[in-house]
Amino acid sequence: MKPVRQAIAAMGTDLGPEVLAQCRVLFDAEQSALLAQVPVTAAYVAYGPHERHRLDIYRPQGDGLAPILVFVHGGGFLKGDKGGHGGGTDAWPNANVGRMAAEAGFVGVVINYRLAPDNVWPAGSEDVAAVVGWLKVHAAQYGGDPQRIVLMGTSAGSVHVAGYLKLAGDRDIRAAILLSGLYGYTPLDARDMLYYGDAALYPDRMPLEAVAATQLPLMLACAEFDPPRFQAEFLGLMQHRLARHGAMPRAYIHSGHNHYSMAMHLGTADRRLSQEICAFVRETTA
Amino acid sequence: MKPVRQAIAAMGTDLGPEVLAQCRVLFDAEQSALLAQVPVTAAYVAYGPHERHRLDIYRPQGDGLAPILVFVHGGGFLKGDKGGHGGGTDAWPNANVGRMAAEAGFVGVVINYRLAPDNVWPAGSEDVAAVVGWLKVHAAQYGGDPQRIVLMGTSAGSVHVAGYLKLAGDRDIRAAILLSGLYGYTPLDARDMLYYGDAALYPDRMPLEAVAATQLPLMLACAEFDPPRFQAEFLGLMQHRLARHGAMPRAYIHSGHNHYSMAMHLGTADRRLSQEICAFVRETTA
Repeated sequence: MKPVRQAIAAMGTDLGPEVLAQCRVLFDAEQSALLAQVPVTAAYVAYGPHERHRLDIYRPQGDGLAPILVFVHGGGFLKGDKGGHGGGTDAWPNANVGRMAAEAGFVGVVINYRLAPDNVWPAGSEDVAAVVGWLKVHAAQYGGDPQRIVLMGTSAGSVHVAGYLKLAGDRDIRAAILLSGLYGYTPLDARDMLYYGDAALYPDRMPLEAVAATQLPLMLACAEFDPPRFQAEFLGLMQHRLARHGAMPRAYIHSGHNHYSMAMHLGTADRRLSQEICAFVRETTA
Repeated sequence: MKPVRQAIAAMGTDLGPEVLAQCRVLFDAEQSALLAQVPVTAAYVAYGPHERHRLDIYRPQGDGLAPILVFVHGGGFLKGDKGGHGGGTDAWPNANVGRMAAEAGFVGVVINYRLAPDNVWPAGSEDVAAVVGWLKVHAAQYGGDPQRIVLMGTSAGSVHVAGYLKLAGDRDIRAAILLSGLYGYTPLDARDMLYYGDAALYPDRMPLEAVAATQLPLMLACAEFDPPRFQAEFLGLMQHRLARHGAMPRAYIHSGHNHYSMAMHLGTADRRLSQEICAFVRETTA
């Protein structure tokens, strides 16, 4: 673990395609091995009419209906892909989370969703809701229990999961896992406005109140080398939950990881976060 | 891990001798085995004139000088003991941290310090400083490197480590680990006043500014089932550090643990926190 920590620490906390590429290289060998080991069960399944309304399913070994862990990728509202196809270093990112889920005994569902700027608020959350609706009808045929759905997102994906809580409430899912998300505790930046629209709309559109209020079990996570804004959002929500509910939600601060590596390393030998996630899924779907 | 989590969750977040006793029962078998496995190297070593100026040393296997991890117990300023003597469930608590350190390759030093109300502020921090001074002179004869001292405290012990930073600065230690401490982000309660004195003295005496300002590597921890005040102190310091230094310090939120079990389980099969602590000690003393 130590060389990975040192490599990630050396990357600093800035985001961008170069750091993303460096992170991919770091986990490429282990993730390619996992890719070879856990095949996709169903790929490019349509859950809606748009070309981005596609999801991949990773089914665990064994019979019976298993809990479902849905993963919503990041990419700053503008980019990102469920992975799971092609070769090289594009094949495994994000798909690795579905594979990790299947290895843990869950049905892993990794989704694409409509992107900004062509698709603005609340497109991302609507698509998460469409996935939940689709799973209610179709999950059982892939071994998934439609009564035991947990949503997990990272970065913009976390925003869309939080937005799902705002849009749809908490009745169709068991729990939500928010990795390095933005909820509304810090000011909008220019890129966020490509999704949310004008800053004046932000107070009404951001998911802050929904995640602060929900009675659903929440797990929050943040990385030691996350950019300051993401750390501020994490701590803002933690304090808000403590003040309102009298206790912090389940949470994990991932030492030795950054904004990208947090989800990207899931499935590798560093099992600290995956163990916390899987324990949380097991408990909230028991 | 699951039955321990359930047992601890069922205890709630209130403190008191009953919960403390329940936690001891929970870890008694594993900690008694560790006690039998890792003998104390030197017991009741005097580091000062008071009867509470005593420390125990747990030396690791191997030659050469090892990093030193000093552990300062909790007990609300009024109680607590380094353990390491007698039988029954009093034998291992707090001493277990020294044993965990020795197993990880560090010299573990577990201390007693003067207690309130007879000994008021800054007695606890003065005693931590006396331990550091004593180690500078004597550590090498027990295999400890006097240039590589890390201080760790829990609860009131954390307050005394933080108070050490206020009293002595950061020049003689490499890092500090603060488990479930109180730094000054929440109001004093009646018991704290037995140590700090009148509430009017608190702003000058609390260690808030020292821990917020220090350039020393810090690791903070807090438990999922810590009382709300301790969670608020943790988040207060996290936000203060983020605002002032542009990044959160290293931190760990321990799911499935409470205020007592956080330090008390160290050395058992649940190695999540001990791994984070030991990695931090290794890195800051490398």
